[in-house]
Amino acid sequence: MRYDIAIIGSGPAGLSAAINAKIRNKNIIVFGSSNLSEKVIKAPKVDNYLGLYGINGEDLKNSFKAHIEKMDIQITEERINNVYAMGEYFVITANEKMYEANSVILATGIEYTKPIKGEEEFVGKGVGYCATCDAALYKGKRVAIIGYNSEAEEEANFLMEIASKVYYIPMYNKDYNVNKDVDIIKDVPLEVKGDTVASKLILKNTVLDVDGIFFIKNSISPKYLVPGLEIENGHIKVDRNMKTNIAGCFAAGDCIGKPYQYIKAAGEGQVAALNAVSYLDKK
Amino acid sequence: MRYDIAIIGSGPAGLSAAINAKIRNKNIIVFGSSNLSEKVIKAPKVDNYLGLYGINGEDLKNSFKAHIEKMDIQITEERINNVYAMGEYFVITANEKMYEANSVILATGIEYTKPIKGEEEFVGKGVGYCATCDAALYKGKRVAIIGYNSEAEEEANFLMEIASKVYYIPMYNKDYNVNKDVDIIKDVPLEVKGDTVASKLILKNTVLDVDGIFFIKNSISPKYLVPGLEIENGHIKVDRNMKTNIAGCFAAGDCIGKPYQYIKAAGEGQVAALNAVSYLDKK
Ligand SMILES: Cc1cc2nc3c(=O)[nH]c(=O)nc-3n(C[C@H](O)[C@H](O)[C@H](O)COP(=O)(O)OP(=O)(O)OC[C@H]3O[C@@H](n4cnc5c(N)ncnc54)[C@H](O)[C@@H]3O)c2cc1C
Ligand SMILES: Cc1cc2nc3c(=O)[nH]c(=O)nc-3n(C[C@H](O)[C@H](O)[C@H](O)COP(=O)(O)OP(=O)(O)OC[C@H]3O[C@@H](n4cnc5c(N)ncnc54)[C@H](O)[C@@H]3O)c2cc1C
Repeated sequence: MRYDIAIIGSGPAGLSAAINAKIRNKNIIVFGSSNLSEKVIKAPKVDNYLGLYGINGEDLKNSFKAHIEKMDIQITEERINNVYAMGEYFVITANEKMYEANSVILATGIEYTKPIKGEEEFVGKGVGYCATCDAALYKGKRVAIIGYNSEAEEEANFLMEIASKVYYIPMYNKDYNVNKDVDIIKDVPLEVKGDTVASKLILKNTVLDVDGIFFIKNSISPKYLVPGLEIENGHIKVDRNMKTNIAGCFAAGDCIGKPYQYIKAAGEGQVAALNAVSYLDKK
Repeated sequence: MRYDIAIIGSGPAGLSAAINAKIRNKNIIVFGSSNLSEKVIKAPKVDNYLGLYGINGEDLKNSFKAHIEKMDIQITEERINNVYAMGEYFVITANEKMYEANSVILATGIEYTKPIKGEEEFVGKGVGYCATCDAALYKGKRVAIIGYNSEAEEEANFLMEIASKVYYIPMYNKDYNVNKDVDIIKDVPLEVKGDTVASKLILKNTVLDVDGIFFIKNSISPKYLVPGLEIENGHIKVDRNMKTNIAGCFAAGDCIGKPYQYIKAAGEGQVAALNAVSYLDKK
């Protein structure tokens, strides 16, 4: 089955895109989290979303959720690892699964976490952003997973079934629901080192000898998510219609630039959806 | 008194600009109507304003109104006729009154009413958009006022004190609250004619010999509102930061382009306000 529009991200940008595409009778799929967005639920008090003064993040999430539920829009709980432009359509991969769509809206937000020293240099050479995708490469090997959210725990558990050793370095405070064989290390990652491939993860208090290092962040940098996507000053480059440099691929929200704000993201999600609709209608 | 930011328009774009500028502690003035926007109150059912599913226009207006009232933002009920860029600041004129501001956000919406034949050709030569502004020119003369909303009735009454004859052609159905000497003509204006200046207003069923013709629309074309403003395909030209070609002048909402939608307008109002704030802070 090929969808009309695949929307990647369930924050205000992605949801606004979803409701507008659905109103236009498009067959859509929305990837993200049932919690919608950490950046929505964590807000203590929101004063600048016109029409909803002084709302807290949890209630804002609930009004977004009520909106999509009333319009019968579901969130597919899946982390997308890659979006490939095939010319006439897109292939979207989520761990082992694959989806197809005629157009794509990127609404992945922005990850504030800066890459650590050496991280970007070794991407594809021992450093990755999806442990389950690359698992086969690490059979019987030693892997470090730096997890920025509890979803990363699943990746650690999955890797534990294949790798000989899994270090889990959580970047958040919670109960860690990991397999007892996973080695939890509470420390601060500083640098990735190696010759041609990554071989050492330098932490503040220790050094780990590893064959692979995965950073499981809340969002992947768009340049790794969509090969060939044009980036400008760290954001996806779009025009006023939210078009990227790839035909049929649109973007909205924090991932396209400042200011980082809810209603700006929602407005852009709407513009992206309506332009995706005209793109499809012209095809 | 010179304001930090003058916001022209009280639709979703102007209001979103207002709340964001106020949160940043700027001294603002918002021009518009206590009804906020005809285009908000008239909507039968709105499904695409994320967070407020299935709301009608009246309730949407009420949530906007509640928002600005809780933030202590007032609407100054004044129709702005001209915005003059003075270099370091702006002069904003409303009939006889003048205001000053260091920056301006244009959020005037868009007027769907197309100009009639000859209208644009005779602008400044007998055709105008503000009767009270040009009243002095029509002492003892014959004037036609084409009113697109009931606010135009005040202009007709004011002109009646000066002109020898005032024709009032209402483009809406309501009770007309005009001076008894004003001649109400229910007809459809088709064309403005004249030699060097306008001298005839051709209606469907009659022809009026006049010295001046005023079109009092819901919004004035931005090119007459702000001399020197760059227009592109009928909309104010802005960049991604909502900057126009005039330093310190920003624009948002329907007046900058399609799609014509509430949350797109609100998002752009926010971006305009935050960029006006950085413009002011850099000064
Ligand atoms: C504590 C806090 C308070 C804030 N307060 C305010 C405020 O008061 N007012 C305001 O206007 N703004 C506020 N913001 C900013 C606001 O949160 C962001 O600008 C806004 O959430 C951006 O929306 P978005 O849809 O672009 O991205 P996000 O809300 O970040 O949503 C992106 C979504 O996409 C998902 N995603 C990312 N990558 C993938 C992938 N590969 N596969 C599947 N899903 C993916 C993410 O998990 C997330 O759910 C606040 C932010 C924080 C952190
Ligand atoms: C019947 C109807 C239904 C609609 N339904 C929907 C819908 O379901 N969903 C959706 O997203 N959109 C809908 N729209 C479109 C939406 O109304 C507009 O896109 C939106 O209102 C634009 O907001 P804005 O702030 O740019 O301008 P507007 O809402 O037009 O507001 C502009 C304001 O500025 C004031 N103004 C203009 N010039 C001056 C001046 N010189 N001095 C002082 N004040 C001035 C005007 O009086 C007005 O109050 C609908 C429109 C209509 C007419």
